[in-house]
Amino acid sequence: MDYNKISLEKHAEWKGKLETLPRPPLKTKDDLSIAYTPGVAAPCLEIQKDVNKSYDYTRRWNTVAVVTDGTAVLGLGDIGPEAGMPVMEGKCILFKSFGGVDAVPLCVKSKEVDDIVKTVYLLSGSFGGINLEDISAPRCFEIEKKLKEICDIPIFHDDQHGTAVVVAAGIINSMRLLGRDLSQQKCVVAGAGAAGIACTKLLMALGLKSVILCDRKGTIYKGREGLNWIKEEMAEISNLEMVKGSIKDALVGADIFIGVSGPNTVTPDMIKLMNKDPVVFAMANPIPEIMPDLAKEAGAAVVGTGRSDFPNQINNTLIFPGLFRGVFDCRASDINDAMKVAAAYGLANVISEDELTPEYVIPSPFDPRVREAVAASVAKAARESGVARI
Amino acid sequence: MDYNKISLEKHAEWKGKLETLPRPPLKTKDDLSIAYTPGVAAPCLEIQKDVNKSYDYTRRWNTVAVVTDGTAVLGLGDIGPEAGMPVMEGKCILFKSFGGVDAVPLCVKSKEVDDIVKTVYLLSGSFGGINLEDISAPRCFEIEKKLKEICDIPIFHDDQHGTAVVVAAGIINSMRLLGRDLSQQKCVVAGAGAAGIACTKLLMALGLKSVILCDRKGTIYKGREGLNWIKEEMAEISNLEMVKGSIKDALVGADIFIGVSGPNTVTPDMIKLMNKDPVVFAMANPIPEIMPDLAKEAGAAVVGTGRSDFPNQINNTLIFPGLFRGVFDCRASDINDAMKVAAAYGLANVISEDELTPEYVIPSPFDPRVREAVAASVAKAARESGVARI
Repeated sequence: MDYNKISLEKHAEWKGKLETLPRPPLKTKDDLSIAYTPGVAAPCLEIQKDVNKSYDYTRRWNTVAVVTDGTAVLGLGDIGPEAGMPVMEGKCILFKSFGGVDAVPLCVKSKEVDDIVKTVYLLSGSFGGINLEDISAPRCFEIEKKLKEICDIPIFHDDQHGTAVVVAAGIINSMRLLGRDLSQQKCVVAGAGAAGIACTKLLMALGLKSVILCDRKGTIYKGREGLNWIKEEMAEISNLEMVKGSIKDALVGADIFIGVSGPNTVTPDMIKLMNKDPVVFAMANPIPEIMPDLAKEAGAAVVGTGRSDFPNQINNTLIFPGLFRGVFDCRASDINDAMKVAAAYGLANVISEDELTPEYVIPSPFDPRVREAVAASVAKAARESGVARI
Repeated sequence: MDYNKISLEKHAEWKGKLETLPRPPLKTKDDLSIAYTPGVAAPCLEIQKDVNKSYDYTRRWNTVAVVTDGTAVLGLGDIGPEAGMPVMEGKCILFKSFGGVDAVPLCVKSKEVDDIVKTVYLLSGSFGGINLEDISAPRCFEIEKKLKEICDIPIFHDDQHGTAVVVAAGIINSMRLLGRDLSQQKCVVAGAGAAGIACTKLLMALGLKSVILCDRKGTIYKGREGLNWIKEEMAEISNLEMVKGSIKDALVGADIFIGVSGPNTVTPDMIKLMNKDPVVFAMANPIPEIMPDLAKEAGAAVVGTGRSDFPNQINNTLIFPGLFRGVFDCRASDINDAMKVAAAYGLANVISEDELTPEYVIPSPFDPRVREAVAASVAKAARESGVARI
């Protein structure tokens, strides 16, 4: 199916994928007087007395802003805020369809970190949470960090953490399937942007100890010339063996490969350098780092990609709707590591021991169990870590 | 009916008056591939090539942002952005119900003019227009002016222009009913905030020549001490006779009274000082400047208020939904005076000569003819004044 052609036609037909609809009736004078003036003064005054009542009397409790500056949209790069909107609208309808979460797309006409931070902060009283989207690295890390410091609502950068949580769930299930202990595995992550760095951090939070992060210039190690601040930070906690060289050099004796880089960067020969029965998640889109059949032939025990036409699709839609459902259900003030770890286990455990196969370590986004499993795990972790507010 | 009590209960039940809903189906893998990745790249790239395509492939063509800082909400004053949200949500559902316009409420956590201007500007690529709401004077004038200069989408401050257009429609019909010529009338406007100043300007655009604007300190005239910049501007074009004194002094020999001030500021004796058969729009809410029965007894020929329980309700809902419908239908880049004048005539002409009575110079917001009449007039004026883009 030629998705591009059909998608363009359908977008022209839909004229926007998102619609804002009234919940109260508005048929009579009384309806108007209750939903609007003069009656509406009553909830206004209640919120003025206690700002937390905004979660009771307005849609704030269930509404996330999906915010981009259009600098890293899909694999298209910096296409600008207006051109990013179709993706943001798409994200918003996934939030609603898969998580029951209302979502508002906002595309910011500036690439300045401080502009984006201030804009989001100034709007943070209108929303229950913020989902940052398709903002280029390393700016995305700085924007997320600053917003977490100044906002009292949860901030989530899906390209980092959504991806990382699904990858983590897939790795958890691969370990279950293969009977291995993550803490004993050696992992190579190709791609040191938003997703690669978040995957590395979350897998370490899950117990992984040995991990080498690679960018276009090869392995990242302490003291390498020209590292940006986030890569310098990562060099402090990863690749402690100081392996230097290419992805190929890093893969020698590795057990897990996580690819969030570009097409065809890994060959079958490179897979053969890994330990026996490696796990290979090759997520570059639309063309993976290595095609699944080639990876399998070269010995991979479990293979995942970003594509829906192969088994084990690493698809963020598995996480962000249920995660925000859980966050909103307990009115969490933050999305912390404990909640991300819980989300990964919640998603992983949707697949029972009996069901696990090399082709099925990650559930389908259409699996009706996913939303509730993720939401419940996240809310529980929020309560246990003290960030739940109801 | 105790609207406050019922409204609070209903708001708690609704848990938000606005909901964001998907327009495309999302039931299958193909649905996802068309509405989201990978297909969504196609409309993104089309918009990147030509930013105007954002009106074809996203909801921008039909979406207005309703923006406040919460400083002048209803008659409640500066209650803050979160407490303003119930009103903004109310506005948004009126936009949809009465104009078919999608609307997104945004409450800005700053009272700084430049913060509000920059926030709105940075988001202007996400919307087809901006409706400013409940921002205190004189900041509202400055914010509107600056935004009109830097944004390429229409900016509308409803408290000013929505009110002014409905008042203008009521005055047009009062003149039709009474067989008078507006250019020969003397008018007094009580209240020199957003609504009072906009009413004065729009009635002058309609042909009114003699008008005296009053604030709490009395008539505004050139050279009066302590005028803010907007009142100084108004003193240049109004009250050229330099009448000094109170509203009472101004009303002597006047034909029209427009009240957008406070309760009970006008007495029957003051109405009797006006010319024969005056027109009295006493719009302070919930208690008018003078109650309609008292105004009538004192000789008023036509009386309007802001209340739904009296005839001739000056209700902005008559204008902003249809006006933005018209603006969006022709993709207007601006909302200029010609369009406001056209909106006033469009609304006035909903009532035929035969139907006009002193109790019926303004249509009901539930009159199904209103939306189309206003929208068509506005779009026609936009085309004729060269701001329509399709």
